[in-house]
Amino acid sequence: MIKAGIIGATGYAGNEIVRLLLGHKEVEIKWLYSKSFAGQDYASIYRNLFKIVDSPCIADDISSLADEVDVIFTATPQGFLASVLTDELLAKAKFIDLSADYRIKDVATYEKWYKLEHKSPELIKKAVYGLCEINRKDIAGTRLLANPGCFTTCSILTAYPLVKEGLIDADTLIINALSGVSGAGRGAKVANLFCEVNESAKAYGVTNHRHTPEIEEQLSYANGSPIMINFTPHLVPMNRGIFATETATLKSGVTAEDIKAAYEKHYGNEQFIRLMKDDQVPETRFVEGSNFVDIGFKVDERTNRVVMMGAIDNLVKGAAGQAVQNMNIMFGFDEAEGLRAIPMVP
Amino acid sequence: MIKAGIIGATGYAGNEIVRLLLGHKEVEIKWLYSKSFAGQDYASIYRNLFKIVDSPCIADDISSLADEVDVIFTATPQGFLASVLTDELLAKAKFIDLSADYRIKDVATYEKWYKLEHKSPELIKKAVYGLCEINRKDIAGTRLLANPGCFTTCSILTAYPLVKEGLIDADTLIINALSGVSGAGRGAKVANLFCEVNESAKAYGVTNHRHTPEIEEQLSYANGSPIMINFTPHLVPMNRGIFATETATLKSGVTAEDIKAAYEKHYGNEQFIRLMKDDQVPETRFVEGSNFVDIGFKVDERTNRVVMMGAIDNLVKGAAGQAVQNMNIMFGFDEAEGLRAIPMVP
Amino acid sequence: MIKAGIIGATGYAGNEIVRLLLGHKEVEIKWLYSKSFAGQDYASIYRNLFKIVDSPCIADDISSLADEVDVIFTATPQGFLASVLTDELLAKAKFIDLSADYRIKDVATYEKWYKLEHKSPELIKKAVYGLCEINRKDIAGTRLLANPGCFTTCSILTAYPLVKEGLIDADTLIINALSGVSGAGRGAKVANLFCEVNESAKAYGVTNHRHTPEIEEQLSYANGSPIMINFTPHLVPMNRGIFATETATLKSGVTAEDIKAAYEKHYGNEQFIRLMKDDQVPETRFVEGSNFVDIGFKVDERTNRVVMMGAIDNLVKGAAGQAVQNMNIMFGFDEAEGLRAIPMVP
Amino acid sequence: MIKAGIIGATGYAGNEIVRLLLGHKEVEIKWLYSKSFAGQDYASIYRNLFKIVDSPCIADDISSLADEVDVIFTATPQGFLASVLTDELLAKAKFIDLSADYRIKDVATYEKWYKLEHKSPELIKKAVYGLCEINRKDIAGTRLLANPGCFTTCSILTAYPLVKEGLIDADTLIINALSGVSGAGRGAKVANLFCEVNESAKAYGVTNHRHTPEIEEQLSYANGSPIMINFTPHLVPMNRGIFATETATLKSGVTAEDIKAAYEKHYGNEQFIRLMKDDQVPETRFVEGSNFVDIGFKVDERTNRVVMMGAIDNLVKGAAGQAVQNMNIMFGFDEAEGLRAIPMVP
Repeated sequence: MIKAGIIGATGYAGNEIVRLLLGHKEVEIKWLYSKSFAGQDYASIYRNLFKIVDSPCIADDISSLADEVDVIFTATPQGFLASVLTDELLAKAKFIDLSADYRIKDVATYEKWYKLEHKSPELIKKAVYGLCEINRKDIAGTRLLANPGCFTTCSILTAYPLVKEGLIDADTLIINALSGVSGAGRGAKVANLFCEVNESAKAYGVTNHRHTPEIEEQLSYANGSPIMINFTPHLVPMNRGIFATETATLKSGVTAEDIKAAYEKHYGNEQFIRLMKDDQVPETRFVEGSNFVDIGFKVDERTNRVVMMGAIDNLVKGAAGQAVQNMNIMFGFDEAEGLRAIPMVP
Repeated sequence: MIKAGIIGATGYAGNEIVRLLLGHKEVEIKWLYSKSFAGQDYASIYRNLFKIVDSPCIADDISSLADEVDVIFTATPQGFLASVLTDELLAKAKFIDLSADYRIKDVATYEKWYKLEHKSPELIKKAVYGLCEINRKDIAGTRLLANPGCFTTCSILTAYPLVKEGLIDADTLIINALSGVSGAGRGAKVANLFCEVNESAKAYGVTNHRHTPEIEEQLSYANGSPIMINFTPHLVPMNRGIFATETATLKSGVTAEDIKAAYEKHYGNEQFIRLMKDDQVPETRFVEGSNFVDIGFKVDERTNRVVMMGAIDNLVKGAAGQAVQNMNIMFGFDEAEGLRAIPMVP
Repeated sequence: MIKAGIIGATGYAGNEIVRLLLGHKEVEIKWLYSKSFAGQDYASIYRNLFKIVDSPCIADDISSLADEVDVIFTATPQGFLASVLTDELLAKAKFIDLSADYRIKDVATYEKWYKLEHKSPELIKKAVYGLCEINRKDIAGTRLLANPGCFTTCSILTAYPLVKEGLIDADTLIINALSGVSGAGRGAKVANLFCEVNESAKAYGVTNHRHTPEIEEQLSYANGSPIMINFTPHLVPMNRGIFATETATLKSGVTAEDIKAAYEKHYGNEQFIRLMKDDQVPETRFVEGSNFVDIGFKVDERTNRVVMMGAIDNLVKGAAGQAVQNMNIMFGFDEAEGLRAIPMVP
Repeated sequence: MIKAGIIGATGYAGNEIVRLLLGHKEVEIKWLYSKSFAGQDYASIYRNLFKIVDSPCIADDISSLADEVDVIFTATPQGFLASVLTDELLAKAKFIDLSADYRIKDVATYEKWYKLEHKSPELIKKAVYGLCEINRKDIAGTRLLANPGCFTTCSILTAYPLVKEGLIDADTLIINALSGVSGAGRGAKVANLFCEVNESAKAYGVTNHRHTPEIEEQLSYANGSPIMINFTPHLVPMNRGIFATETATLKSGVTAEDIKAAYEKHYGNEQFIRLMKDDQVPETRFVEGSNFVDIGFKVDERTNRVVMMGAIDNLVKGAAGQAVQNMNIMFGFDEAEGLRAIPMVP
């Protein structure tokens, strides 16, 4: 039994971590940190947890709080953890950071896309990028885990085997993705009001969404050389879910069977990745509430392209679920512990 | 470990039973019965269960199927179970019926409201009405469980303590309720198409909704004499959830403290009923995916009325969850087994 | 051709006034006033009006602005108009106020329910309550129009003929209403975020919603003596629409025919009120985008009660549409001018 | 004043034609044809038109019906018009066909993608493809108008100027599009039930959606040589709206200014096409209920690609609105007559 603290516990991802850890056999939640809601009962904010969680939010000294726990989850705005993390803190607790602070190895790239000065660039090299199915071995050994973004988790996992096996011309990769609104967070912004989002669809962050360099970096590792993509996210009126549609030109002679084999090779034994049967297309509702990634593809012989599709729950596999999966790997627990919830339909 | 079969497994309530039983330690699902989808893989219909359930729907002889299991759930249209159930079948397996066939003791009332001839009226007296928090003792001893309707579960539990303790004038009770669309089932009807339901609200079944006599019968038992109510259900554009708003005139001298005490007396020890703190109003999102009933109330001193409010997930406490809770009672399991899921927000 | 100014033009109701006036033959919009967005292009905020409205929001001196127009619409927070209106301003332009400032005749009642000091109580007596179908004659002669609230418009019109004709026991009237989220306005509040509202239903303002005294005052006039009601509003996940369900005990001997006759007597010639055919229930989608009020009812002979139901678009008949209808009456235009849009389905 | 008949009047597109023609000064609706609902009051099906349309659906002999009108709209399944149309009928009335029967010039292509035998291939050459902004001159002279599909209208108009002016490498064009659910029609299918569609996103028709050859044919004309694209549509939970995101590689040296100039050249004088200001992205809510096409773009200098984006209301510009616009052109009316509705927000 380990002890966990959560910083940024009152955001949607923070609350999802709380929900998942409450069902985890090996973890006790020690404290819930929230600057905005310090002193308020956590269950008065998230009333789904009424009679289940009976403690207030706190905002005490982080160094002291770190003494009380084995792992700290930070579901905080970009820049927060980079501004407080030190080797001393890392010695006290393992950190699983849901922000982008330690995801990108090149600090200049981070600073350019995030328009922020990185306050602890020297720690970046200690961080492991926590895409569990790809980096499992490194994750097991780290004390600083950079939990991937929601779009990136879905986008990378969907394309990874084809890039890794050299089946597509990586320079032709175009990613379009759809996201539910919870990805925008719980901040009080007009743009996220029900009446501004409901009954509408739009693209956003066109050509400059911050998940772009993260996707590019990871797929470049898989590719063996740098690649650049176009990533266009869209907002659609639903609470949860990410759907990624990725198009790329097939290398000469590549068949649907080759693609299927590549997916099977990399994901055939993965319990959280479900490879669709022939011609089936993922739907976000079929992964809602779960840690699953559903992946399908279709070859277009007319254009010699492949259309790859992936679906995840942005708050689970795209945030809190993957964070818990990373924690399980980092502490040697069963990787599925706390993550066995079956998707809920409808 | 007991064995269960589910008839009507491809409806929304049927699928929810499957989902809950998959997380239940004491139950193995033996077969999934569906006339419409016999021979098809269950997971091809409910792809949330892809790689989790690996069996086809069947539609074999029910008598033989009953030999294989300890309990049969029927999530079927009104009239189905009444037309097939016999003492012989009841001797083979316990039945938990999610239809209305055995809920109403007076067969004439059933036939009038449901416009159906009851094919096995002699079995009605063997049935126990499965409102767990009220009838726990009788439930434990029955082999034929009439699982309450979704509106009725929410409506009755919200008003029960005040009726039972004589705090309100039961003849003044007016119930208005809101339901998500999953309550209408998975049949291919124009009225339930996305574009017919989305962005709209309406009442339906006004003065003649079939849950009316069920609510009246149970509250009449609590009242000690017959009562009649007005029950008006409404359809609102969401997947899950029932919200009941119930207004009644207080008997002379009754205070908010009296009401609070009555709720505490009857529900203070109930793990699935959460009594809101003063002035808090339930919201369906805070019970979604769970077996909770959230109940709140407000006294209006101007009009000497009380407004009681209850919220449930119609597919869990309003159907499959309560069915599993009843099964737990009937088989002597921990009453919360398989039902500990925390509501998921958002 | 008259000239109009709109104060509070960037709220949802303000924008709806703009939209409706743009289709009105007798009105030119002279200016759009918004404190929060002064200087910004109106069409940059409401991009539905891109290439249609080409002027910035202003926040100039109201007295000077009043010189430029014949009518001023105020779609502003409670208390705003009461704090700026004077006889001098009223001499310059007619005012149509969408706030509650001049709706309630008894200033003490206003101050109690709104928890605000009324800054110009002496002007209240000059105001006419703008429920067009009831007060048409007085509306024609006023310079200060108190435009009714959304819930109140729907609630009063639905019950008015039965109260006026003495068909129901007015003391037994219970009103439950459902509202879309646009009624909550465009302010940046967590409670109105998509993910807080979507997939949920709840009551709010239970026993203390501010539309209660407004409904009571108007129905008391109809009744000939004071009545008190219970009014319980609910929030449901849709953009527009109000649905009111009203239950009351029938006076002795009253029949469905009497009720039908009462509705016909009062509304038979009203172009914006549609009396449903027997047994039909209104739905908000069938009035969306229009100035219609759809009204239906059902007598419950078992309980001797009537269930009355009304549906409106909260931003049209419940706000901007009724404001334009009032303007039409006040200036002697065709009452339907600018209001002939047909409801849009789906 | 001309007379119009509508075949397939009870589908969503049919109803939208009715709604638009009711606001058109030059057209009288003569009859509403519906096989499924023959004999039923039209307003009992579309109750938004209660007290507005007072006639039953009919299913009489089409040849006789054609004698009564100047124009017939067919909002019917693929294959219907092709199976009934003759030169004789065309001599009686002009036809505006919302199905795909006469959109594609090559009958083999039609038969391959639609898996239907074309019953009147000899008439295809008489048809004009009714993309108003591109084919205005030919539309004016035809008696047989093939009204474009919803996805195609949005997809083609968004890319047309760049293809026509040779600014992009047309072979690299990738189109991803999102659609609201009304595009799927009003048929009673499980897949379109509220609970199957709400809170989910998915792709469909991947590599084989029937709008693909239609987009390819029209863009090939613009390109001057055949092109093939990948078109991937997605279903998102909203009633109306299409959003197209189109990515293509820029030809050498092409700048954002060149692209802007191309759009201005082709659409600068178009009243229904709104070119977004720099960096603004269309949103479907800003065109809802209107005939507008909102188009924006962004150049990605990193990848040398352009991302083009278009938004329409699928039932208006994507179906009924464009049909009315085509009628206006065919009969010499003001092209905007009946189509001046301002988008409604929210």
